[in-house]
Amino acid sequence: MCKSADYTIHAAHHHHGWDHSIPPVETVAPGTTLEFECIDSAGGQLDFDSTADDIAKLDFGKINPVTGPIFIDGAKPGDAVKITIEGFKPSGFGWTANIPGFGLLADQFEEPAMHIWKYDPDTMAPSLFLKYGKVPLKPFAGTIGLAPAEPGTHSVVPPRRIGGNLDIRDLAAGTTLYLPVEVAGALFSIGDTHAAQGDGEVCGTAIESPMNATVTLDLVKNAQLETPRFTTPGPVTNHLDRMGYEVTTGIADDLMVAARDAVRRMVDWLGKTQGMAAVDAYMLCSVCGDLRISEIVDQPNWVVSFYFPRVVFE
Amino acid sequence: MCKSADYTIHAAHHHHGWDHSIPPVETVAPGTTLEFECIDSAGGQLDFDSTADDIAKLDFGKINPVTGPIFIDGAKPGDAVKITIEGFKPSGFGWTANIPGFGLLADQFEEPAMHIWKYDPDTMAPSLFLKYGKVPLKPFAGTIGLAPAEPGTHSVVPPRRIGGNLDIRDLAAGTTLYLPVEVAGALFSIGDTHAAQGDGEVCGTAIESPMNATVTLDLVKNAQLETPRFTTPGPVTNHLDRMGYEVTTGIADDLMVAARDAVRRMVDWLGKTQGMAAVDAYMLCSVCGDLRISEIVDQPNWVVSFYFPRVVFE
Repeated sequence: MCKSADYTIHAAHHHHGWDHSIPPVETVAPGTTLEFECIDSAGGQLDFDSTADDIAKLDFGKINPVTGPIFIDGAKPGDAVKITIEGFKPSGFGWTANIPGFGLLADQFEEPAMHIWKYDPDTMAPSLFLKYGKVPLKPFAGTIGLAPAEPGTHSVVPPRRIGGNLDIRDLAAGTTLYLPVEVAGALFSIGDTHAAQGDGEVCGTAIESPMNATVTLDLVKNAQLETPRFTTPGPVTNHLDRMGYEVTTGIADDLMVAARDAVRRMVDWLGKTQGMAAVDAYMLCSVCGDLRISEIVDQPNWVVSFYFPRVVFE
Repeated sequence: MCKSADYTIHAAHHHHGWDHSIPPVETVAPGTTLEFECIDSAGGQLDFDSTADDIAKLDFGKINPVTGPIFIDGAKPGDAVKITIEGFKPSGFGWTANIPGFGLLADQFEEPAMHIWKYDPDTMAPSLFLKYGKVPLKPFAGTIGLAPAEPGTHSVVPPRRIGGNLDIRDLAAGTTLYLPVEVAGALFSIGDTHAAQGDGEVCGTAIESPMNATVTLDLVKNAQLETPRFTTPGPVTNHLDRMGYEVTTGIADDLMVAARDAVRRMVDWLGKTQGMAAVDAYMLCSVCGDLRISEIVDQPNWVVSFYFPRVVFE
């Protein structure tokens, strides 16, 4: 965290869902740096002692709070907010769960499961997953967005053109994100911080972890952006790729089928080679494995590959 | 190319389509290393002087020849062929085309286009793309597969569970690929060599380039593999990622729509920032940009991102 914040936005200033009628916590000039206290996506309902049994007890009305909103002076529809992600202050606590009905293979994993992570927030050393290996960490905000023009309260779950629950792993420190503005002041909020996640977030949860996020909010006037765009300052997989990857494939005339097949085959492979329970493998895939579209043109079959980083088992 | 081959399989021994009745060129013991002369995917119909006008003149019956097949002693249905990709001897010639009716955005790019590449096969230095930038090279075989059990001749275009036109960018030197065997002897063939490609191969062609490929063919008995699986010895994007990425997104309830949107937005962005013609940007995206599934669980909207390596414009 190299840049100090002009404002701290406390966790008490959080909201559920997107609604442009929510009054702003602060009004800031473009170029302002703010530190946000972000509650985890379970809304603080889980802790180090939580187990799979606690999933059924969750109040889903408290899921995925975001801290904000911030009114940016001068922001108008058609502009873009330029968000420089300065850094994170992780908490050391995290959880990953299989939540019934949620996730890429929800039909195959119907029982709740939970893994609690205790990581070192100072060193951010790879974090132990059961007896199997260590997952490299790279914190980011899963949900980062602006208020939509359409009146009313909109679910926080689906990502939208104005951002929101993007769950893009590379929105990490150093990245610059651009979001299209739909309402005066833009109304920026952030939350759903993750200590690590693979591309796809296949089981539906990452290493869900409360932490502070510091960002600088600026404007690009009349950017006429359609959907989020971002720039990374350097490589995005250095934390994962040193030892290479084990890769499974899905080959089908439908990308969703191919993606599901690739992940299921990696779950099978982890079970076979590491002796891991299927649901553990599924959760591990979600926090460190990447879904990539290898080819999307060789009609009628596309190839989706799932890349699992070998460094986990080093 | 660190390992010398026991056999050289000449380009004259090529075939079109997959058919287990094609007689093998050689029968080899497991563990044998072979060097294959691979014709490019246009079947040698293009050269340094080719232009977009030559696309209409292509004989599509000669498209995507593969060199082989090789009968591996002892290979039986249920086994896997373990293919160690030893290395490539690139030719220095390559082409990338927009072929009408083919490619992710075929409806938006209806006119033929061609870019001819002249690269240094010894240094494999990044290769100039018009006046705009340089594309890092990483050779691999786009088509690598075994004969299917089903009788008859099967098109080489779609990839299958026994491999084929996988177009997986990371099947490069050092990678170990496993393919499921469907017929006695496995009947291995290889071709469609590429000097570079991004994940997705979005315009439908890579840097299509004739070259020799050296592989070691071994067996894993009774592997009961469903589809191709591979292991990379190290990072897969070191050639691209040093300067980071420009990234566009597609957000939709359909992965194909999201992928198309993400690529179209990158084409627009390259046009706007680099002054590049749309079809040039589309072809450039195909040879070095990557399609990744950022999230596939936040119902009902998925995020597909297109990563363009900034090093191209360094």
